[in-house]
Amino acid sequence: AKRKDFVYSNRGMTLEEEINSSNEHYLSSGKAVIHKKPTPIQVVKVDYPKRSAAVIKEAYYRQSSTTDYNGVYKGLYLDFEAKETKNKTAIPLSNFHEHQIVHMKRCIQQQGITFVLIRFSCFNRVFLLNSSYLIDFWENTLNNGRKSIPLAFIEDNGIEVAYGFNPRLDYLDAVDKMLERTIK
Amino acid sequence: AKRKDFVYSNRGMTLEEEINSSNEHYLSSGKAVIHKKPTPIQVVKVDYPKRSAAVIKEAYYRQSSTTDYNGVYKGLYLDFEAKETKNKTAIPLSNFHEHQIVHMKRCIQQQGITFVLIRFSCFNRVFLLNSSYLIDFWENTLNNGRKSIPLAFIEDNGIEVAYGFNPRLDYLDAVDKMLERTIK
Ligand SMILES: [Mg+2]
Ligand SMILES: [Mg+2]
Repeated sequence: AKRKDFVYSNRGMTLEEEINSSNEHYLSSGKAVIHKKPTPIQVVKVDYPKRSAAVIKEAYYRQSSTTDYNGVYKGLYLDFEAKETKNKTAIPLSNFHEHQIVHMKRCIQQQGITFVLIRFSCFNRVFLLNSSYLIDFWENTLNNGRKSIPLAFIEDNGIEVAYGFNPRLDYLDAVDKMLERTIK
Repeated sequence: AKRKDFVYSNRGMTLEEEINSSNEHYLSSGKAVIHKKPTPIQVVKVDYPKRSAAVIKEAYYRQSSTTDYNGVYKGLYLDFEAKETKNKTAIPLSNFHEHQIVHMKRCIQQQGITFVLIRFSCFNRVFLLNSSYLIDFWENTLNNGRKSIPLAFIEDNGIEVAYGFNPRLDYLDAVDKMLERTIK
């Protein structure tokens, strides 16, 4: 019996949780090795109690200098950022940071595969967008271009990621489609 | 005037600091994009003082499930671990963890390039060793093989990494040499 899509959608996981769960599936099935990078934390004070684990007593979150995820898939270096927006018509570029754009450009220079996974939470739709588009919008903004990427543009130039049971978000299938387009 | 090697060596940097400094050079010169993964930390308690940054008040170090470094170099996914030993004749396998071996095997399956950078601190010599050798030693140990990798074996099968000014440790040159060997 074929289940309907809504069975799998909108169970209250964040996009990050959905990606992490998909990565576990990819890892255990031998399809890819992709991990979320830990948040960098500046540790200031640590206690070392006897007979138990070190306890960090003072620490601060630091700005990451890269993106959320990276790893290897069929010999390719993948690097991507995940973003959610409640906006219904576009994703504001204010969701991205200069250092993320710089990092993606550097990875492209090294022939890495870089993209963003964007979730429009109102519609529960997730898209993969090649980061070259993001970079174009980012650089146009510096020249007084628009400050967001329209959903309509993403529908046309991105690839919608299907929700499923396992993997929950089969974004590697979208990566394959993106690579096919690039080759054509 | 040609400087002697010792000018560059033994300035009291750890291997990790030397690699991080080399990575900064590779990054700024556009040669590769390689970062140390942050140590994963489990945050338990956070204070949010008014008008200042969040302060982590209780947190614990977690075991990383991967290796120290990864990134992209000329279209290749690189993934490696850095280890120092004070031992003069071999590096004990107790320096490695099961999860690091598992992670390297998974990356190899995906056609990633994996290796270890091993520093013999008594001699201030650093070697790149393809992780396939490490995996062989690891698996032989499970069959009562020796519990360390001899320096003599590493001299024969690894590639010594030259110390220099910038990058301090030109390990990508050693990667190139390793790849040439693999192709032959
Ligand atoms: Mg994100
Ligand atoms: Mg290490």
